[in-house]
Amino acid sequence: MNQVQTRRGGRSKRMSNRQSNITKAFDKAWRQWKNNYPPVEQFSADEIETIHNASLKVLSDNGIKVLSPLARDYYAKAGMTVKGEIVHFDPELVLDLIGKAPPLVTMKARGENRDITIGRNQVGVCTTGGTPNFSDLQQGRKPGTLAKLQDFFRMAQSFDVIHIIGPSVEPQDVPTNIRHLHITQSMTSYTDKVPFVYFRGTEAVADSYGIIRLANGVSKEEFSRHPYCYSVANSNSPLMLDDLMCKGIIDAALAGQLMVLTPFTLSGAMAPVTIAGALVMQNAEALAGMCLTQIVNPGAPVCYGSFTSNVDMKTGAPAFGTPEYVKAAFGSGQLARRYDLPMRSSGVTASNAPDAQAAYETQMSMWGALMGGCNLLLHGAGWLEGGLTASAEKFIIDVEMLQMFAELFKPVEVSEATLGLDAITDVGHGGHFFGTQHTLERFETAFYSPLLSDWSNFENWQERGSLDATQRANRIYLDTIKNYDEPELPSDRKEAIEEFVAKRAEEGGADISK
Amino acid sequence: MNQVQTRRGGRSKRMSNRQSNITKAFDKAWRQWKNNYPPVEQFSADEIETIHNASLKVLSDNGIKVLSPLARDYYAKAGMTVKGEIVHFDPELVLDLIGKAPPLVTMKARGENRDITIGRNQVGVCTTGGTPNFSDLQQGRKPGTLAKLQDFFRMAQSFDVIHIIGPSVEPQDVPTNIRHLHITQSMTSYTDKVPFVYFRGTEAVADSYGIIRLANGVSKEEFSRHPYCYSVANSNSPLMLDDLMCKGIIDAALAGQLMVLTPFTLSGAMAPVTIAGALVMQNAEALAGMCLTQIVNPGAPVCYGSFTSNVDMKTGAPAFGTPEYVKAAFGSGQLARRYDLPMRSSGVTASNAPDAQAAYETQMSMWGALMGGCNLLLHGAGWLEGGLTASAEKFIIDVEMLQMFAELFKPVEVSEATLGLDAITDVGHGGHFFGTQHTLERFETAFYSPLLSDWSNFENWQERGSLDATQRANRIYLDTIKNYDEPELPSDRKEAIEEFVAKRAEEGGADISK
Repeated sequence: MNQVQTRRGGRSKRMSNRQSNITKAFDKAWRQWKNNYPPVEQFSADEIETIHNASLKVLSDNGIKVLSPLARDYYAKAGMTVKGEIVHFDPELVLDLIGKAPPLVTMKARGENRDITIGRNQVGVCTTGGTPNFSDLQQGRKPGTLAKLQDFFRMAQSFDVIHIIGPSVEPQDVPTNIRHLHITQSMTSYTDKVPFVYFRGTEAVADSYGIIRLANGVSKEEFSRHPYCYSVANSNSPLMLDDLMCKGIIDAALAGQLMVLTPFTLSGAMAPVTIAGALVMQNAEALAGMCLTQIVNPGAPVCYGSFTSNVDMKTGAPAFGTPEYVKAAFGSGQLARRYDLPMRSSGVTASNAPDAQAAYETQMSMWGALMGGCNLLLHGAGWLEGGLTASAEKFIIDVEMLQMFAELFKPVEVSEATLGLDAITDVGHGGHFFGTQHTLERFETAFYSPLLSDWSNFENWQERGSLDATQRANRIYLDTIKNYDEPELPSDRKEAIEEFVAKRAEEGGADISK
Repeated sequence: MNQVQTRRGGRSKRMSNRQSNITKAFDKAWRQWKNNYPPVEQFSADEIETIHNASLKVLSDNGIKVLSPLARDYYAKAGMTVKGEIVHFDPELVLDLIGKAPPLVTMKARGENRDITIGRNQVGVCTTGGTPNFSDLQQGRKPGTLAKLQDFFRMAQSFDVIHIIGPSVEPQDVPTNIRHLHITQSMTSYTDKVPFVYFRGTEAVADSYGIIRLANGVSKEEFSRHPYCYSVANSNSPLMLDDLMCKGIIDAALAGQLMVLTPFTLSGAMAPVTIAGALVMQNAEALAGMCLTQIVNPGAPVCYGSFTSNVDMKTGAPAFGTPEYVKAAFGSGQLARRYDLPMRSSGVTASNAPDAQAAYETQMSMWGALMGGCNLLLHGAGWLEGGLTASAEKFIIDVEMLQMFAELFKPVEVSEATLGLDAITDVGHGGHFFGTQHTLERFETAFYSPLLSDWSNFENWQERGSLDATQRANRIYLDTIKNYDEPELPSDRKEAIEEFVAKRAEEGGADISK
């Protein structure tokens, strides 16, 4: 026992600063998740074909209302039938086009070992995006600011299970014409991970791409050869694509950047009240949007977006992390695999506080997503209140859950050494394994060491102030911000970005309506 | 919209009392879970054979230290080699014996539609058991009492997703010689679901069986034909079976009652630090204990118990709901299916408070258990603090998660009606589905309606006091106790039990040491 205690004492000392859990040594399994569990299937192969065929029939018979003349032109030239604003899709042509999209997408990041591949068994995780509000225990719930957005970037940078950056909080204190400039500048300087670009008009998209190219130090040509960022296009369910989204899809396709087509199919509201019906609509809209990418630039990277959830039929309020959400996620994975495309899902909750409900709803959604074969987990950390708030404490709670999934995805070795028959014989009947060689050789890395969970006994926990998980998350969040290390960005690139932002601001920024 | 609003208004009124969620109409899918998802597999078939063979080797070479002379006698007579206190198992004989145990076990309950089957795709859920302490927000953490145990029975009776009763809180205010009498009397009168019996000596087991027979109004002969209750035997890992457990296993087998053999294999402490090694030990101990049942009474019902988790290697404290726990649960399901036996797992956490940690650790363990093919989920509601406390709020949080799983397990219909193509056509582009016939026909039962989750918007939530999930759970717990309906127990049975308990108390109760 002494030897273990000594070694454990030593470890304990090294681990005494919580940061050592946060900035742990490079762990490939945390940086690029590989989920080797066979995905859970909600439907039979026949049922998936039925949903697939029904969505093709919707695309053909009902069509999609496309509000962008430019997009309608693209569709028409590709051979779709355009009547007024409605595009009717030829099913065979749809499948031909979708077949051109790559099954695996590697996004380049400016940080070392930060490239991330999504598709098949590979998974990338992103922070929450687009919430108008921010909250923490000190300040409560406030409108988002650039400073708070930067805090979320600091947190996103600090944890290896976060691979991709979401625009967590909307910086409402920055004018809309230059907001995209400051979001992208902060995102590419506070983090070295794959950044996000809003579809807020062609000018804003071009500006954002420009900053990302400067941050990565790549030419326009090099940029077009690999995705260096990603964007999400939401169809306006039911069966509509608006002008801004169409332009974004076209812009991303032309630039060769990743576009995630996510229908906003809330079952019972913008989609049928049945899960099967909602998936028919989701699938139709996703195929329509992804087709446009492949018409514009065959082979451009896309991701099949699933966001199907349901509303509370008593109030119309959207609900997340529900049993129906999980079933839809399982089914969406099957549909995405039907086309051999990466699948996007999310970690979501309708809770108004970073509490037990937030934890269990988010975890329901994460299990649905990840066991359903999700390759791109958006809103993976920080989402609260159905996406209206980014919570600092929820971010830490989510990171803990994500780290648990990252560990879960590490395979278990079955070998003579791990079966431990010698150790079992050494210890004998009624002994313990603390001091055996078998344990000593492995104990430091055998088990997941938590970030947030407190496993101490009640008395010790009470002595330390009886802090619940949310209160402890608050401390970890504050520590994380305090101990954050800004990733190195060469000064010439930094200056080039500053000049670019200043120049574009001087020119009046971007018109985000077109 | 008007029609929907009227109907929703009507529904809202009917649903205004939270109790209507609790005492909802008989729902077969909630009363008997059928999990039709193919279980998630942690190991290849070859790896499972390797673990299986290693455990047979441990049983044969190392053997199990059996502290009961009676049990050693049984083993010897069956053909095992007994050397001193060590029983060495013949692998073929082990497999022959295990092959006699039934794959499906139906437990009879005294309540209508309360029988529960476990095994294959059928799942039963049980409340937490054996915690020395109780806690709620009003009283904090206190030593368990009979009154508090009865409150947990009231809660267990009130929710349809609870099928089986656990001895939630240890009633420390009742002397140990008569404690089993009062536990069983309360369990069989406050609930009409399948009860639990402690292995606390042959006399106490006989007393408990006696009370259960009286509650069910069945003869000793009828009782022996079906399991009417269940017990858990823990092996003393590593590789020991103590006297009391052996006696219990023998008592349950002779009476034909369900025995769950659960090795307490905490990886790193009482079992090897590797998951594969811990499963070898778990499997060896489980097979040894279940064998004894089949020697005593071939065909008697048993359940393969899995409780493998890990300790915190920094402190030695047990951890629950960890990634390692989930992997062990997935693997345990595979091992139980290897023998075509029902599998027991648990809903567990090391958290000291009914908070976000309690929710995410418990849900990790539930997903591991249920997607791993668990048939008997013990500690399904109320467990806190690694089993040292039964929390009233945690009970409600767990019931919410269990209800979500019950809904998840309901299949999704794919048919012309549910695909909703007519509704999609009716609604057209950019409309909504609230008022369509397709929605009106289904909205009342389309989605899970939560017990605890609050889906209202931030402003409404704030107006109602900004209560977090734990505070709301407290209110639901108090309401549940207040609105509890005691299930009918014919007065002659009730009196017979009272007489039995009084008589046995007069006789000095039971000696729980033998």
